[in-house]
Amino acid sequence: MLTNIRISALRCAPARFQGQVRDLAVRWALEEAGLPYEVRLVGPEEQNSAEYRALHPFGKVPAYEDGEVALFESGAIVLHIAEKSALLPDEPAARARAKAWVFAALNSVDPDIIALGDIDHFAADEAWGKQRRPALAAMVLRALRHTSMVSDMPVLRAYRDRCEARPAFQRALAAQLAHFAENEPNAA
Amino acid sequence: MLTNIRISALRCAPARFQGQVRDLAVRWALEEAGLPYEVRLVGPEEQNSAEYRALHPFGKVPAYEDGEVALFESGAIVLHIAEKSALLPDEPAARARAKAWVFAALNSVDPDIIALGDIDHFAADEAWGKQRRPALAAMVLRALRHTSMVSDMPVLRAYRDRCEARPAFQRALAAQLAHFAENEPNAA
Repeated sequence: MLTNIRISALRCAPARFQGQVRDLAVRWALEEAGLPYEVRLVGPEEQNSAEYRALHPFGKVPAYEDGEVALFESGAIVLHIAEKSALLPDEPAARARAKAWVFAALNSVDPDIIALGDIDHFAADEAWGKQRRPALAAMVLRALRHTSMVSDMPVLRAYRDRCEARPAFQRALAAQLAHFAENEPNAA
Repeated sequence: MLTNIRISALRCAPARFQGQVRDLAVRWALEEAGLPYEVRLVGPEEQNSAEYRALHPFGKVPAYEDGEVALFESGAIVLHIAEKSALLPDEPAARARAKAWVFAALNSVDPDIIALGDIDHFAADEAWGKQRRPALAAMVLRALRHTSMVSDMPVLRAYRDRCEARPAFQRALAAQLAHFAENEPNAA
């Protein structure tokens, strides 16, 4: 049983990234597992401190601590929570298969999604971005809601909708967004 | 103790990808753990078969089976081998930290390396590749040996060299390359 859980999250984020920041996956896992947690909000100053870098070598979010371990990388944290709760099947073959899909999401699906987002958010008007984008077709879930790539595919759309309808996901998203709303530097 | 281990690997691969194909990480982990394994060689025909897709939904390599579980995704497989052998520290905090670095390699470091390789191998002469490349600076290890990005950094270079000097790594690499040499369609 995990206790004394503390995660880090961003104090504020640009509007287009709110609801996408990586602590969301950890919050969601904790909500599904029914585990209470505290949040330490960080900004650039804390993220660059030696103390925070000892917890998260890249100075990103989320960092995670419980009574026993300290972790960074949302994938590692989610898997740790899953291993210590009822989120994974008990039967060994099914448990292994579920973990394989965690890795598939992080290493096979996610990189193309991030690359597409990088273009759309940062290089939409650059020549290389315009040339590169058509080739970056990827399996797509929540991160691609600014495109129609998920909503065009009924099975994927239904899966995403079922995920987003879960009360645990709604609590996780609301908790992340609440910090941003409190810490908004100015109206956009 | 893992027994009856079988992995899949490519029957042949273009010269520039030999020594980079993803079964190498799994072979290396198995060599470090001292676990014998069988290799099932596959090509496009097997990779697209329903039987293989049941094992690996993306039709890629490596797929993995032992007496108890079936897995895909090299990261999931390496972690499974590590969990069942002496490759991870026993102490919980150290064990968790080691796992976090596996995820960091797969989800924070690897995507930029792959993106750089995609440009260098497939889009070096395209305008978007030329424009995009300078911004793709990434932490770099073995996959970037075609650049000087590792050899310019003494600590990283020494780490890579120590890794590649390990007998287990040498055995894994030799085993992968031997299949390619046997199955070479023609001299390049």
